Amino acid sequence: MDQGPRGGSADAGDDAGTGGDRRADDGAGGHAVGFLADLSLDGEASFGASDRDLHAGGYETPEEEEVTPDAVVFAASTADVSAVLAAANDRGVPVTPYAAGTSLESHVTPVEAGISLDLTRMDAVLDVRPDDLTVDVEPGVVGADLDERVARHGLTFPPLPSSGEISTVGGMVATDASGMGTVKYGEVGDWVRSLEAVRADGTVIETGTRAAKTSSGYNLTDLLVGSEGTLAVVTRVTLELAGIPEQVRGGRAVFPTLDDATAAVRDAVASGVDVAKIELMDADAARMANAYSGTAMPERPMVFVEFHANHGVDEEVGFCRAVFDAHDVESFEVSDGDEMDELWTARRDITYAAEEWHPDLDMGHSGDVTVPISNYPEMIRAVKETAEAYDLFMPAFGHAGDGNLHYFAVYDHDDPDAVDRAERAYVDLVERALELDGTVTGEHGIGTGKRQFLRAEHGAAVDTMRAIKDALDPRGILNPGKILPEE
Amino acid sequence: MDQGPRGGSADAGDDAGTGGDRRADDGAGGHAVGFLADLSLDGEASFGASDRDLHAGGYETPEEEEVTPDAVVFAASTADVSAVLAAANDRGVPVTPYAAGTSLESHVTPVEAGISLDLTRMDAVLDVRPDDLTVDVEPGVVGADLDERVARHGLTFPPLPSSGEISTVGGMVATDASGMGTVKYGEVGDWVRSLEAVRADGTVIETGTRAAKTSSGYNLTDLLVGSEGTLAVVTRVTLELAGIPEQVRGGRAVFPTLDDATAAVRDAVASGVDVAKIELMDADAARMANAYSGTAMPERPMVFVEFHANHGVDEEVGFCRAVFDAHDVESFEVSDGDEMDELWTARRDITYAAEEWHPDLDMGHSGDVTVPISNYPEMIRAVKETAEAYDLFMPAFGHAGDGNLHYFAVYDHDDPDAVDRAERAYVDLVERALELDGTVTGEHGIGTGKRQFLRAEHGAAVDTMRAIKDALDPRGILNPGKILPEE
Repeated sequence: MDQGPRGGSADAGDDAGTGGDRRADDGAGGHAVGFLADLSLDGEASFGASDRDLHAGGYETPEEEEVTPDAVVFAASTADVSAVLAAANDRGVPVTPYAAGTSLESHVTPVEAGISLDLTRMDAVLDVRPDDLTVDVEPGVVGADLDERVARHGLTFPPLPSSGEISTVGGMVATDASGMGTVKYGEVGDWVRSLEAVRADGTVIETGTRAAKTSSGYNLTDLLVGSEGTLAVVTRVTLELAGIPEQVRGGRAVFPTLDDATAAVRDAVASGVDVAKIELMDADAARMANAYSGTAMPERPMVFVEFHANHGVDEEVGFCRAVFDAHDVESFEVSDGDEMDELWTARRDITYAAEEWHPDLDMGHSGDVTVPISNYPEMIRAVKETAEAYDLFMPAFGHAGDGNLHYFAVYDHDDPDAVDRAERAYVDLVERALELDGTVTGEHGIGTGKRQFLRAEHGAAVDTMRAIKDALDPRGILNPGKILPEE
Repeated sequence: MDQGPRGGSADAGDDAGTGGDRRADDGAGGHAVGFLADLSLDGEASFGASDRDLHAGGYETPEEEEVTPDAVVFAASTADVSAVLAAANDRGVPVTPYAAGTSLESHVTPVEAGISLDLTRMDAVLDVRPDDLTVDVEPGVVGADLDERVARHGLTFPPLPSSGEISTVGGMVATDASGMGTVKYGEVGDWVRSLEAVRADGTVIETGTRAAKTSSGYNLTDLLVGSEGTLAVVTRVTLELAGIPEQVRGGRAVFPTLDDATAAVRDAVASGVDVAKIELMDADAARMANAYSGTAMPERPMVFVEFHANHGVDEEVGFCRAVFDAHDVESFEVSDGDEMDELWTARRDITYAAEEWHPDLDMGHSGDVTVPISNYPEMIRAVKETAEAYDLFMPAFGHAGDGNLHYFAVYDHDDPDAVDRAERAYVDLVERALELDGTVTGEHGIGTGKRQFLRAEHGAAVDTMRAIKDALDPRGILNPGKILPEE
């Protein structure tokens, strides 16, 4: 790893800190960050070009939107985070938290340069308390590592999203992430019991309680969850856990039409079928899956389900089958173990299938809207109608039980007309979701990508959000350019 | 009802507004509230002594702590709330929301006089959406009325606390109330999907979304839940609902010792027994219950349980029985219907039993602490040891599955020494709960009663809470004197 002048003179640091090769021409200026060299850190500050380049954006940040920070701090302790923030706040230097970089809305891009605060070294599982069904972790722990660790106690972290294979708990908390299991278990935020966080001025606070419930004071925990590092930097998370279910069943249902499939999902949820996952894939997605895997599934809308229980799982599957039958389900295969995994393959591989779909076309403009379940059938229809109107190939899939929908266009990114059509389709669908009482992002967050819609979704409440931001981060150093729109 | 000079001249109103017969000598001055007479309200403003006296405190506010407001506004619409707040904020007049007045921590006492904003006329169930499992209600709707209304659709509001027979949804939201069902279903706040609320300056905002999940912007919903009317006044609540469970079983277990009972509860929760309610009552409480009802239950520690399921409830009861057996349970009777209700009588009547316990003694200094479940046995022991140390009769009961504990002393309120001992015992136990990683209030809120402990529980996070309060209510008109301590 390319290290900067750790422990060097302030002058050397200042020099290093002004040489950022930022790529975006958005006016982000170089900040003098040499002061970092004078801090006594458990981790380290790096001013090297390599580290800085690696922190210019996340996996999904388009290259033209990357911004190279003036320095990277690899924090190793809460004290590090506090020292860096206190010093940066004194000098008005922006600080953008960074961990796995898997964000889909450019949360980790340091749009005003300054310091990229890398939390991946703070990846410890600090304390598992099986009697309390809780665990304390550092923010840099990868979701899958956490789940593996608590599995030794027969426990699991139920809302873990699929991205948890590589994404960190800190990132999940920052976006209030969720995923397939949310229909039964709720969002990541629902499982956060308390936080340790560092305020912009370096003050360390603890929010919430380790007790199972509290009515004491303002709920700062849930305010910080989903705030994308713009109000404080989370340095420790106390999560709730649950026992690993004794019975797991799952499978795949095929419906004659998309309307049948979405109506079946809506009715299953409204009837209280206890599904742990219930996912939709439209015929276009099924076609992609066949092409990718060489399978011969019917290229019709499919619903994937999974059930978790300690008793009576077969009764629950039967209840679900009755609901699906009422919507003319063509087939509904259910199994467990490897056979269940096999039935789920197409859903699991959808992103890879999309990437491989066409040698000259790429996926882009992916959406993450969520609507009330009663409006889900209409939202899905809107995707297909929009795709037709703009002459785009747009498969649709998502966490149907939550009314969540992921869609994307597959198009030639070098064709300006196709890019324009994809952009317009994307915006139309976000606006349609709002008309259907939905939200512009169910799980990926606002980042830089959805700031333009914040006012349309929240109206005057945006001013309340801004008042809170100004109160907690008066110098605006914490992850600037995220969530709140410029107005 | 004694009506004030609605539509009268501002002068008449001003006169009426300065004649408050406030009882507390805490410096609360009369505020000129005649401007209310000039507002065009859907409801009405009252300056009459009778209405004002009725809003001087809640059911549980000691008479010496009551403060008579200068006026009462019976709001009938969001527009009313907005008009009153805008006008009051312009003039720096305090506004204290009021509904059922069942608060246990004097939330509704207008400690700086001003306006009592009565929301009981805003009691409509606006829209039940069975397909979405949601309902929109006004804040003044009584919990039991809501539950009855949605029952027509086969739905229920699962976290409804026992007080919901008389308390309102607005009050439950204001304190993030919870109760017996919380061990399975969570707190009231966990079921709030979105809010309409009025800011101090009269701005109406909507928080959250009607979709099942969102990652869009700051979570203002959960910030307002539990904020006790100090950040905004809630005027509409969108709640989630669930289907009424098909199978309900419940009953009562008797244990040889208190340690056996608390250990059994701890292990049942840690083992993932799916209880919908799990309540503890100690031998003193059992003695009270026998005296009140003329029953002959064993005067030993008891655990009350209830199970909700759609399938397999008997397996779950069996699982629970195995855990209880491991803690030497003496008897564990389980039934359903009226027989189950019969088994639960003692737990249900505990408050009445306490009130009737002794002709010359009254209950007082009731606690609402909650600790991590692993520390519950130790917390319960602390109650009994404290009772002995201060020579007080202190029955203990509570929502054991959450680690929640209600305790109170029964003593002669005219005996200064007994009052002093009860006060010291109360404070000792709150401090003990904090030592055991707990919270000073699990469900009743801070109000005026627990402000003294806020700093001890939350440390520097109190400053963050204050920054938010100052940002959202710069003139400090919203329910002053609650939650945040004077420092």
